[in-house]
Amino acid sequence: MKSYRKELWFETKQRRELLQITPQIETCIHESGVKEGLVLVNAMHITASVFINDNESGLHNDFKRWLEKLAPEKPYSQYQHNGVEDNADAHLKRTIMGREVVVAVTDGRLDFGPWEEIFYGEFDGNRRKRVLVKIIGE
Amino acid sequence: MKSYRKELWFETKQRRELLQITPQIETCIHESGVKEGLVLVNAMHITASVFINDNESGLHNDFKRWLEKLAPEKPYSQYQHNGVEDNADAHLKRTIMGREVVVAVTDGRLDFGPWEEIFYGEFDGNRRKRVLVKIIGE
Amino acid sequence: MKSYRKELWFETKQRRELLQITPQIETCIHESGVKEGLVLVNAMHITASVFINDNESGLHNDFKRWLEKLAPEKPYSQYQHNGVEDNADAHLKRTIMGREVVVAVTDGRLDFGPWEEIFYGEFDGNRRKRVLVKIIGE
Repeated sequence: MKSYRKELWFETKQRRELLQITPQIETCIHESGVKEGLVLVNAMHITASVFINDNESGLHNDFKRWLEKLAPEKPYSQYQHNGVEDNADAHLKRTIMGREVVVAVTDGRLDFGPWEEIFYGEFDGNRRKRVLVKIIGE
Repeated sequence: MKSYRKELWFETKQRRELLQITPQIETCIHESGVKEGLVLVNAMHITASVFINDNESGLHNDFKRWLEKLAPEKPYSQYQHNGVEDNADAHLKRTIMGREVVVAVTDGRLDFGPWEEIFYGEFDGNRRKRVLVKIIGE
Repeated sequence: MKSYRKELWFETKQRRELLQITPQIETCIHESGVKEGLVLVNAMHITASVFINDNESGLHNDFKRWLEKLAPEKPYSQYQHNGVEDNADAHLKRTIMGREVVVAVTDGRLDFGPWEEIFYGEFDGNRRKRVLVKIIGE
């Protein structure tokens, strides 16, 4: 069994951003030499997500507006977690979007349907944060 | 290490349906010959889900009503993604329900608690769509 | 390839509780002898979750209040699943929080970011329920 590990770093300019990271994950699979196996891609921070959906900017705006409705940022005082921090909403938003994805590796590539793309979802940005890529297989 | 891959195809008659697929996944595990490992089951489309819950029709109606409350289909104009498409709500509903499940394979079987069943959740149906089953182990 | 399996049992005193279980998972990894691989941790019951977030009691209260807003317990009559049962809300809450986590094992340890901790989320407690830990790797 082979295993491979890499950290990807991101620093967004806005509090909330959705970044397409499929090419970086494809590169990791190529570097790993794994032909058949699984790749785990997870946010290493608890106010960020990794998820799979469509690379369409209108939909990304829909996601942001929808998350703001389900877990509003303000007023900050509505959350006990806020005080020293102001990011309670980011913990909730990341919960909706998910921490991680597990994707099949087949024939040395991401085994994806026609529109699947991997995204890093940042909900408390403006600082350096990490995604972990772990691949196991043969 | 063994690996196994299969696509399962579905075409629902309604826009939204929840289909129990546990027996098909058990068959895949049997075909794979894997006794100890992990099985990944994921929707290959970004308006559908794979999730684990109870096989109870009242609860399934609750899920559908609840998803409609959290991410309503109409009015279509509330979502930027709609225009050529009308399925923005399906992307959001699938996000709540999840893209994938990872289940332990133990002694050649799904390692499940007493009421766990695997479902395909369709939120934009009336066309052929796929689920990927990937099994790794020994 | 090595594989390892263990069930962890929990019985909460309240209907809803969030329990930090990171040390038990670390112990499982140590017992497994796996140095590089993946650990799957999942609720074996469909009214409970396993998730990763921050070990901060204010945030945990925020999670509980937020879940109650998105999927209220009462009135029981709002859910078709209730009748013999009264736990439809617990099925929905667990869906938001997630059934499972998959975590990388690197150098014989949980490969975690700075604040990641694993939690068992109970939404229909007062009885003995289980979490499954499955580890594969080398």
